[in-house]
Amino acid sequence: MIGVFDSGFGGLTVLEALLGRLPAYDYFYLGDSARAPYGARSPDVIYEFTREAVEFLFASGCPLVILACNTASARALRTLQQRYLPAHHPSHRILGVVRPSAEALAGLSPSAVATSSARGTVAVLGTTGTVASDSYRLELAKLAPHLSLLQQACPLLVPLVEEGELTGPGTDYFLHKYLDPMLSSATPPERILLACTHYPLLLPAIRALLVERRAASIELLDQGEIVATRLAEWMARHPEMDARLGHGGTRRYATTDDPRWFAARAATVLGRAIEVEKVHLQPLG
Amino acid sequence: MIGVFDSGFGGLTVLEALLGRLPAYDYFYLGDSARAPYGARSPDVIYEFTREAVEFLFASGCPLVILACNTASARALRTLQQRYLPAHHPSHRILGVVRPSAEALAGLSPSAVATSSARGTVAVLGTTGTVASDSYRLELAKLAPHLSLLQQACPLLVPLVEEGELTGPGTDYFLHKYLDPMLSSATPPERILLACTHYPLLLPAIRALLVERRAASIELLDQGEIVATRLAEWMARHPEMDARLGHGGTRRYATTDDPRWFAARAATVLGRAIEVEKVHLQPLG
Repeated sequence: MIGVFDSGFGGLTVLEALLGRLPAYDYFYLGDSARAPYGARSPDVIYEFTREAVEFLFASGCPLVILACNTASARALRTLQQRYLPAHHPSHRILGVVRPSAEALAGLSPSAVATSSARGTVAVLGTTGTVASDSYRLELAKLAPHLSLLQQACPLLVPLVEEGELTGPGTDYFLHKYLDPMLSSATPPERILLACTHYPLLLPAIRALLVERRAASIELLDQGEIVATRLAEWMARHPEMDARLGHGGTRRYATTDDPRWFAARAATVLGRAIEVEKVHLQPLG
Repeated sequence: MIGVFDSGFGGLTVLEALLGRLPAYDYFYLGDSARAPYGARSPDVIYEFTREAVEFLFASGCPLVILACNTASARALRTLQQRYLPAHHPSHRILGVVRPSAEALAGLSPSAVATSSARGTVAVLGTTGTVASDSYRLELAKLAPHLSLLQQACPLLVPLVEEGELTGPGTDYFLHKYLDPMLSSATPPERILLACTHYPLLLPAIRALLVERRAASIELLDQGEIVATRLAEWMARHPEMDARLGHGGTRRYATTDDPRWFAARAATVLGRAIEVEKVHLQPLG
């Protein structure tokens, strides 16, 4: 199975793209809803929670885990890959969403390994934790050193999405608060990455705001497609991992909070009913 | 020590009132910031997290624990008092904020034990979990059976407070969304209880809205003073507990997330710097 982890149900937007692009694999989606959202938590806590989730997915038979959560990718992935995997699971793999999204932000095609010489400005909208980690800046500096990056923390967008406030004056107020400064800057961005799994649910409201601000030419990057495209590429380069994954097209869904609540939220993202298990994550000390 | 528990730093508004009214006791405040907010989580998860926190405070030397969190009081207190304490800690006590707040909402003085014959309408603003539990309705039905109760879940107020959005058009929009229906009802409330420890930080914005709506005569009940007054009463009736508590005026503060972050937020509530420890809560299985 391919494990897909997110702090909550938002990562289902990434899973949905994976199922569309790579439907034959078996998938196990885990949302840590009992402790969501991760966005404003400290790096130590995000690392600890993410490691517990990864350990659970490994133990459940997933040799490959995708961190669909930007906050977890930005705050925990590097340490997991460089220290935790070599010491505890040397043949397992964990992939995040920051690197592939930064490649797309740099305008690099999935198969390109070159550095981009592009100039101009691009932007990232993310949680407080994602922006504070500066992960996108670090990745982009390697991939496209001449691109300027604007980053904006949008701490209220996840609660607004969680409460179903996808449109309306309250949501518009905060979208303007977060977007207006970058739209009014001397060098507005050519593309904006929605670097949080919840944000695609706000796409209609964000598009309307760009039209209102006469900025409709700005490209909005949705991570689901980006991650799915680049995972297909990665898999083609890693046949040894492909051979270890089940290809039965099965799907499992688990949450750390109420499975009925999770299934109801999932239905709004996936457009279909799913069965959800409740699981406990064990502290690893 | 008296243990004071909240899901985050909001309960410091209750602690502050306790320190003002009953300063001689030793206090240990615990905020579970790594897993806050509790408001929208399921009853099972709220019970589990609250029990872990209570167990920690008991083990730290607190024979009396106050659940400053309305969600925990509404979702977990009854089971903790009726099943958990008798089986595991028969001489310890846990008190919540729902019962004393319902007494104040009923217009009953702390020393009164009678039922109120008052008629009219009162209202509660709370988290999704507090309102869904119907705890305030159940308590009020016993205390003042002829009072009508309006309840409003306000799920975005905690995130707004956490992000420091205490005023402004975005906050006003959601305050209007939550308050306008009760202000426009055929029987608007005579008093409104702010049944969440975060909400007192929105008092200026709520007062301004009531003035704008020509409803400034509505009384706003802040739980800090209510809980402090009624705890003083309770203590006078329980000298055996008073004798088990330290009277050295010491204060300890702990959080499950970054103690520096917590100390910075605490300073905005308490108006002074405090030292904060980081602790881990153990799952009890």
